[in-house]
Amino acid sequence: MPLTDISTYLADRDSLMRQDRALRVDAIKLDNLSATEAAADEIVRAMKAEEAVSVWGAERADIERTFPGMEFLTSRSVITKTRVFELLHKMPKGALLHAHLDATVDVNFLLGRILEQDAIYVRTCAPLTALNPTANVLPEFSPFPKSEVKLSAGKSVTDPSYDGGWIPVKVARDNFSLELGGPEGFDGWYVASTTINPAEAYGTHKTVTKIWEKFRETFGVTRDVIRFSPIFEAYVREFLLSSIEDGISYVEARVNFLFKTFFGPDGRSTLAHRDMLRIYGDVVRGVKDEMKKQGREDEFVGSRIIYCTVKIVTPEELEWYTEDCLALKREFPDLIAGFDLVGPEDTTKPIVDYLVPLLRFKDRQRELGVEIPFIFHAGETLGDGTAADDNLYDAILLGTKRIGHGFSMIKHPKLMEICKERKIAIEVCPISNEILRYTTSIPMHPIASMLNHGMPVCLCSDDPSAFGNLGLSFDFYQVLVSSEQTGLITLGEIALDSLKYSTLEGEEKERAIAAWKKRWVKFLEDVVRDASDL
Amino acid sequence: MPLTDISTYLADRDSLMRQDRALRVDAIKLDNLSATEAAADEIVRAMKAEEAVSVWGAERADIERTFPGMEFLTSRSVITKTRVFELLHKMPKGALLHAHLDATVDVNFLLGRILEQDAIYVRTCAPLTALNPTANVLPEFSPFPKSEVKLSAGKSVTDPSYDGGWIPVKVARDNFSLELGGPEGFDGWYVASTTINPAEAYGTHKTVTKIWEKFRETFGVTRDVIRFSPIFEAYVREFLLSSIEDGISYVEARVNFLFKTFFGPDGRSTLAHRDMLRIYGDVVRGVKDEMKKQGREDEFVGSRIIYCTVKIVTPEELEWYTEDCLALKREFPDLIAGFDLVGPEDTTKPIVDYLVPLLRFKDRQRELGVEIPFIFHAGETLGDGTAADDNLYDAILLGTKRIGHGFSMIKHPKLMEICKERKIAIEVCPISNEILRYTTSIPMHPIASMLNHGMPVCLCSDDPSAFGNLGLSFDFYQVLVSSEQTGLITLGEIALDSLKYSTLEGEEKERAIAAWKKRWVKFLEDVVRDASDL
Repeated sequence: MPLTDISTYLADRDSLMRQDRALRVDAIKLDNLSATEAAADEIVRAMKAEEAVSVWGAERADIERTFPGMEFLTSRSVITKTRVFELLHKMPKGALLHAHLDATVDVNFLLGRILEQDAIYVRTCAPLTALNPTANVLPEFSPFPKSEVKLSAGKSVTDPSYDGGWIPVKVARDNFSLELGGPEGFDGWYVASTTINPAEAYGTHKTVTKIWEKFRETFGVTRDVIRFSPIFEAYVREFLLSSIEDGISYVEARVNFLFKTFFGPDGRSTLAHRDMLRIYGDVVRGVKDEMKKQGREDEFVGSRIIYCTVKIVTPEELEWYTEDCLALKREFPDLIAGFDLVGPEDTTKPIVDYLVPLLRFKDRQRELGVEIPFIFHAGETLGDGTAADDNLYDAILLGTKRIGHGFSMIKHPKLMEICKERKIAIEVCPISNEILRYTTSIPMHPIASMLNHGMPVCLCSDDPSAFGNLGLSFDFYQVLVSSEQTGLITLGEIALDSLKYSTLEGEEKERAIAAWKKRWVKFLEDVVRDASDL
Repeated sequence: MPLTDISTYLADRDSLMRQDRALRVDAIKLDNLSATEAAADEIVRAMKAEEAVSVWGAERADIERTFPGMEFLTSRSVITKTRVFELLHKMPKGALLHAHLDATVDVNFLLGRILEQDAIYVRTCAPLTALNPTANVLPEFSPFPKSEVKLSAGKSVTDPSYDGGWIPVKVARDNFSLELGGPEGFDGWYVASTTINPAEAYGTHKTVTKIWEKFRETFGVTRDVIRFSPIFEAYVREFLLSSIEDGISYVEARVNFLFKTFFGPDGRSTLAHRDMLRIYGDVVRGVKDEMKKQGREDEFVGSRIIYCTVKIVTPEELEWYTEDCLALKREFPDLIAGFDLVGPEDTTKPIVDYLVPLLRFKDRQRELGVEIPFIFHAGETLGDGTAADDNLYDAILLGTKRIGHGFSMIKHPKLMEICKERKIAIEVCPISNEILRYTTSIPMHPIASMLNHGMPVCLCSDDPSAFGNLGLSFDFYQVLVSSEQTGLITLGEIALDSLKYSTLEGEEKERAIAAWKKRWVKFLEDVVRDASDL
């Protein structure tokens, strides 16, 4: 065999690989790396390869069958101990563009706030006993004015004779039966009710339909308390601060406005959506001021809201929400970033059912001279040609700015072309998709295909309080370890793009990008320095 | 809202959908359906939609969480009772282009043949007792000349004092301990050792690595008995006849030639590969003659062999096999269809390791004036940029005619373009991929993406005796019910293409296609008539 044949073959091979990877977000960058970029990328690739064996390839007593990108709920405690995760936690992530506000803050933080409030009461639909264990009975929390609440005759929901009435939350906790763990048992019950555990996601509820039932239940438990203004303020603040701690410098939060009022400090449901936005805006300004005082203004450029309602409303009812959104946009032009319709796509109404009010909404925007981009959920489904999959067509035809999930996008060659041309980014939520059983592990997730096909993507956490993937480090970690292609440079390009695909504009966007770039250079230097210190 | 806006929108929507589906194998056909084609497609869509609710949407006592395209091993008994399956069983399927001969025949048929043979003996590595149950101890069967076999002192592998020696298979079965079920227990043990059960695939062995361990074991159990010439002949015949019964009219079987000899009727391992091919050719001719006698010549046009060895051999050792393949091709030009390298790609050597002998093999073909296309396994992996994934580059650069599995192909935009241009078909094995845990269900499988992107595909069963997906009806069924896009017309186009992508050429291919078309028209007429009879 002449050696020329082999070397020609290998040159052809290299050229074909480059052509095949040319559409990737990191393709140009990888050909033009600075010495620091190249070194940092190499360090992380080596660390990842080493941990693929030492961590994910090791036999463990506590977990069967570990592998990189495996089920998150089973492996979270392994991930947090890896050097790769520790490093990614420090990485500047850019923007978080897909997260539902009601599921963004650590459940223990929220429980702490609930227990501080005298106005909050709890009830269940049945007594909670050893025979009717915590998994079967959900708590419902709500604020009330003291004079108006219809109290239970009992002292806790664990009394066999509990009558289903409201009990002050601290009383219910203090008197939670010792058989069920006493006050700590109460706390555990609360956590189990507001999060998804591995036994549910990977055992009892392991199809999309079943796990969505549990997932929806988690929202019902705390819905009213998050919408209680004293807690709302602390909640939003904690969301922003914890995002900043994870390297997120800008947030577009999806806020559910389905319920037309929320609760004031007196426990009365009399506050309007505008009051909610005022509080949100105040908290954002407060956090920005604090960061500035600490000389950390590069770490947080702000937060905006994507107005959402749920695809259970009728097309007629939707008009109330679009008008509400228009009014809020005119009053808070900097806070309203866009409009979305949410809910499990396989079982809620398709976007096309709302065609009339949505086209009317666009007309009204023109009339009023405001612009509220659609940022639609679409294609969060395993379907191929189902109504949920077809939502992708309507999202794009209605001019969506980004697409929430777009899990089925990879099945649509023409739509992929359009998204690439028009820079319609896909808000990919890897861990959410895995826990909600659209995919079984991240190596099976279409994210690798999307990146290789040059789709514009950002990585998002979706509902991190329910899933345990708070911040963006976990989603970045799962994507990094599930591909040999993807490295630190890839993640950097994705983080940078998240700011580009945000609704930030003009100088504000430029400032956000410049701040991120400054921090990114510093981060890479730290990675290289820390490695040489070893 | 002016109605014109809505109707313009809906026209745009329809146009976008058409553009998005334009690459599909069924796109042109669906615009030009005959009345019978349209009616048959409609009938099957309605039947599928009805059974999605009545069968797959029903609560069942025996199976939790049923849905269309779910885990095959759990749902096989449900599938076989559906009207859609009954209908697909009668469909002319075209060619079976990816099946490993050693795993193609119903395990009970093979057991029956084994028990007829005095030359066959069995042994295990340890006594099989209640404490050391059947799942842990595998049988090994082998033929021997009577005078030369080293017999065990005991009468069955279930004696606690069993010494690990060989026992005549009928003796071992007759004396199989009653505690373990007696002779029927023996049969059950054999079946469990040669098939994958749901508890393994979806429980104890549910990662790619673990289930491959079990899968590889199944081959060891019967390897020698399939390569025992009296059984080999009956085995090949049964494979072809059962394929014909399922509507398959042509087969390219992958035959593993790793072992350099096989066993003659006297139990001696003295037969050469050429003897194996002679028998194969005789069986094919015999079956063709029989079909002709029955006036069924349209139902079977023949069968050829893809020469395989395993990617555990060294590059130097490979030269023996390529030379062997060349000699066989020259002696049996009509029987050798191509050449492949097999084995689990994530753990065996990559194709690029064999570059020198493979390029040399091509030179030798030119020297000898023969043509043996590569038909490589490649991309049977969840990897993204791993050596197994990179096999796709080498398969294509070496000029592969088709690609076995190509599970990771959807991650490669440039390679997808090349496959479309050069009509390199992907031999998709949906049920195999699901059982071996590359995907958890068919709705998660990349087949829908492949079809929508216009990839040339054929559907194959891979190792149906181990998986239970004998014939092609099961794989066609799973693909049909997992997509709203795919209908009977789609399956017809896929079946027709399988003949086009085969190694048949010239007049032989034309005849095969003409025969299929004749049967297809008849089949559609039957579908329509049967529906109107109801």
